[in-house]
Amino acid sequence: MKFSPLVDELIQSLRCLPGVGPKSAQRMAFQLLERERKAGLKLADALSKAMSDVGHCQSCRTFTEESLCPICASNKRGQADTICVVETPADVLAIEAGGHFSGRYFVLLGHLSPLDGIGPEELGLSLLEQHLQTGDILELILATNPTVEGDATAHYIADIARRHNVKVSRIAHGVPVGGELEYVDSTTLALSFNGRIQL
Amino acid sequence: MKFSPLVDELIQSLRCLPGVGPKSAQRMAFQLLERERKAGLKLADALSKAMSDVGHCQSCRTFTEESLCPICASNKRGQADTICVVETPADVLAIEAGGHFSGRYFVLLGHLSPLDGIGPEELGLSLLEQHLQTGDILELILATNPTVEGDATAHYIADIARRHNVKVSRIAHGVPVGGELEYVDSTTLALSFNGRIQL
Ligand SMILES: [Zn+2]
Ligand SMILES: [Zn+2]
Repeated sequence: MKFSPLVDELIQSLRCLPGVGPKSAQRMAFQLLERERKAGLKLADALSKAMSDVGHCQSCRTFTEESLCPICASNKRGQADTICVVETPADVLAIEAGGHFSGRYFVLLGHLSPLDGIGPEELGLSLLEQHLQTGDILELILATNPTVEGDATAHYIADIARRHNVKVSRIAHGVPVGGELEYVDSTTLALSFNGRIQL
Repeated sequence: MKFSPLVDELIQSLRCLPGVGPKSAQRMAFQLLERERKAGLKLADALSKAMSDVGHCQSCRTFTEESLCPICASNKRGQADTICVVETPADVLAIEAGGHFSGRYFVLLGHLSPLDGIGPEELGLSLLEQHLQTGDILELILATNPTVEGDATAHYIADIARRHNVKVSRIAHGVPVGGELEYVDSTTLALSFNGRIQL
């Protein structure tokens, strides 16, 4: 035992957060105890509710405590015949912030990674296939990350789409607008050359 | 609202932790929801118990859910007539890890900082004075940090000790053992010259 039991247990428990090592767990615990008791209690409450009640949207798999997430439950989405496939709920947020896409989403909550035991079933691909089988979906837009795993996942899903005669596309990767060419990494640069558009 | 209400609230609440911005709060929330539900519930429990039940040791002011912390409650401390004054509970841990000090501690939980409204009362200095008044304390060792605020705090406490005719000392600051002179910062180097010992 290092400190009093309850303090030790708080420090130990904080280690479950990603990126929090022993030193930062200590710092967090002391800051909460010193001057954030109310916020700490609120966090305890938010945590226990979320861990117990949050499940997956029955349509897009994102996290929600309802059966459908706000986006899937909305009847104000214009392109209901288009599904954009992303890896994480944060990706949905980024695309929504852009405001250019008004279709549905499908959240994989990961990417294919056989070594970690993450296969098609773990990514909910049979649920995605059910959506394609309805015949209501005209296009699948793949927005997985431009990584080896993201690419493999995109190819795997593209094959499923083709089997159901659903049009499938992938968002373009390249030099960001406002980005200076000389500071862009070589992989991005290669993607931007491969994805060049004829003028 | 960005995500479902419970998810939003979890992300928002995580922001009370020091060094956790919007992006890392999101990452933490999703990691907990994806694969750390049990750990998340345990953290919720540890937080709520600690925020509600942890108070201050009646003797040294460190955090504890008992009236006395394990160190103050122990009757196995050799130098009961010596008090080492530190800024934080983590400092106690560091000194205990060294294993060379077997006296008592007094934890300021901060340092004098008039601009932040932290004066002698906030640091519990009247409690420290009560210890000195008993006549049982022969020496006060000041181990506040070698910063402007830590120095000011040390001088303020040294004056109190002198008023009660208690011997007062400050731990030495200088080049760490095994440290290479050329990589030591200039302030530390200055302290090590000022604190030189005649041979
Ligand atoms: Zn949904
Ligand atoms: Zn104590």
